[in-house]
Amino acid sequence: MANLSRMPIQAIAWSPSGAVRIVDQRMLPGTLVERDLESGREMAEAIRTLQIRGAPLIGIAAAMGLVAGLRDRRGAPREAFLTRVEELSSLLGATRPTAANLRWALDRMRRVARETPGESMVLWDRLRTEATSIWEEDRAMCRRIGEAGIGLVPDGANVLTHCNAGALATGGIGTALAPVYLAHEAGRKVHVFVDETRPVLQGSRLTAWELAHAGIPCTVIVDGAAGSLMRAAQVDVTFVGADRIAANGDFANKIGTYGLAVLALHHGVPFYCAAPSSSIDVSLPDGAGIPIERRASQEVTALGGHVLAPPGGAALNPAFDVTPARYVTGYLTDRGLVKPPFPS
Amino acid sequence: MANLSRMPIQAIAWSPSGAVRIVDQRMLPGTLVERDLESGREMAEAIRTLQIRGAPLIGIAAAMGLVAGLRDRRGAPREAFLTRVEELSSLLGATRPTAANLRWALDRMRRVARETPGESMVLWDRLRTEATSIWEEDRAMCRRIGEAGIGLVPDGANVLTHCNAGALATGGIGTALAPVYLAHEAGRKVHVFVDETRPVLQGSRLTAWELAHAGIPCTVIVDGAAGSLMRAAQVDVTFVGADRIAANGDFANKIGTYGLAVLALHHGVPFYCAAPSSSIDVSLPDGAGIPIERRASQEVTALGGHVLAPPGGAALNPAFDVTPARYVTGYLTDRGLVKPPFPS
Repeated sequence: MANLSRMPIQAIAWSPSGAVRIVDQRMLPGTLVERDLESGREMAEAIRTLQIRGAPLIGIAAAMGLVAGLRDRRGAPREAFLTRVEELSSLLGATRPTAANLRWALDRMRRVARETPGESMVLWDRLRTEATSIWEEDRAMCRRIGEAGIGLVPDGANVLTHCNAGALATGGIGTALAPVYLAHEAGRKVHVFVDETRPVLQGSRLTAWELAHAGIPCTVIVDGAAGSLMRAAQVDVTFVGADRIAANGDFANKIGTYGLAVLALHHGVPFYCAAPSSSIDVSLPDGAGIPIERRASQEVTALGGHVLAPPGGAALNPAFDVTPARYVTGYLTDRGLVKPPFPS
Repeated sequence: MANLSRMPIQAIAWSPSGAVRIVDQRMLPGTLVERDLESGREMAEAIRTLQIRGAPLIGIAAAMGLVAGLRDRRGAPREAFLTRVEELSSLLGATRPTAANLRWALDRMRRVARETPGESMVLWDRLRTEATSIWEEDRAMCRRIGEAGIGLVPDGANVLTHCNAGALATGGIGTALAPVYLAHEAGRKVHVFVDETRPVLQGSRLTAWELAHAGIPCTVIVDGAAGSLMRAAQVDVTFVGADRIAANGDFANKIGTYGLAVLALHHGVPFYCAAPSSSIDVSLPDGAGIPIERRASQEVTALGGHVLAPPGGAALNPAFDVTPARYVTGYLTDRGLVKPPFPS
């Protein structure tokens, strides 16, 4: 009998009523709260406030949220339905500027809506199938990324990761964590060092939580401790995710990824970027064109009502940084272990 | 008229009753709380619980705490007084293992006690003078470090620092921040990027607070943001403190310092270690011999009662790391800008 508490967490699903059921990631690691989002507006709010995050997952969530939000227009005339598709796509697409998957998923949904003949009910049904496909493709994609990387995780491996690019960031078993889950599934002993990943602490709050949930040993460290761990030869391989990858392999990921890449290169630790092909944006020749979201300084200066910096003091809070391709040992994608330049 | 609110904070002083008056640094940046420590035990507790921290300051604090704690033995026989000196020195010396200054200050006090002839009252008076000298030498030392470094802080400079090696870490204007304070005093425009410095956040809580208190502009960043700031050429020079420096120049400082040094070298940003000569431990040939304090994992997994990591999860919390000398552009000490090997 499978031990269910040892399975990777499922971050998103349809509720019986057709709403989108998500794990509210703001409540982790304290409490596992599932929330049913009934409308496009609720989903946009959930994405904007990081109830749900992770580049692949917000693509899926936006597509599913679009479908949930169109339920009340199934009886409307086709043109009104299509107008609503555009409105909700704009609303959902404006929530996070850096992730490529969000726009990619919404563009795909909009195209399907326009190209499907028939009345609103038919369109809606087709969109629901399409959103479910995006989700299922993501699950399959996660496993293919894991297969591309499992050879890098031998028995006894010590992996380092930053932020959360796991089951809580995708519809499946994650991107950066997929090789870890597959190695664990294959019975190998794996241990993961988890950068806590300030300011939002996706590492300690989410990655450590989902690894513990799946029964995989991990150790949380502050972001500043990665360098001395590498110097002490305690890290065998580093896996990180990506929010967007340019054609030349430069990629945007959570702030701190670039510094980690420099440290990995300096210490000869292999450094892999794991992401679905949908995160590759071949319209961008290099990383200089990736927009970097600047979030509120309060994420840095306060935590849970606790004041961490002097009132009125300035803080800079870029959510992402760009790691040039030359720091990356390889890219784990659903097309295998690849190297740039990526085909358009 | 001097604008008092624009002066560096004074971290330690004698109270009128002969207790040691400290700023309780656990309460910053929210509230400025001063606390009078009446006994050696109270001072040991204050050092152990980080009410007062910073390598130079805890040396001063231990010496002054020893004096405050000996007040009730001024009428005791000489041998009983000396026994008490040893007992309190052991108690105070056991509070923090990494800082060289703590042992250095207590050894100096013990020697003076033993070598001073006369009765307990005479000894106590001599020890009080000695503790005050340690403090005053530290104030002078801070200014000399500042003078050694002020040439590295031209008008318009952007400085990066890690942790707190400022007025709140010393009896005077700090070590790593001393060049900044002197440049500011000389009317130069200076801006400081402050690594928040997880897990205890001495950067955002203390450094940003004391710079704001002195009217010096600063911007708090998460530790993971330093790399991309350097890549964007926004950092002119990096100053950090040191808890202990080995004879060859390897030095221990707050966790994250080593990673920052690697990033500085990689980006061609000058990287200076600022510390009093008393932090140089010539008995250690290199950094491998510096003991690294491991603190409780709760410092990483919780903050102000807020749970940051899954309950029962493992966290590694080395308080310091060791930066090899080859990463250091120079050492700012009270003997000027120096390079290893240091004379014994």
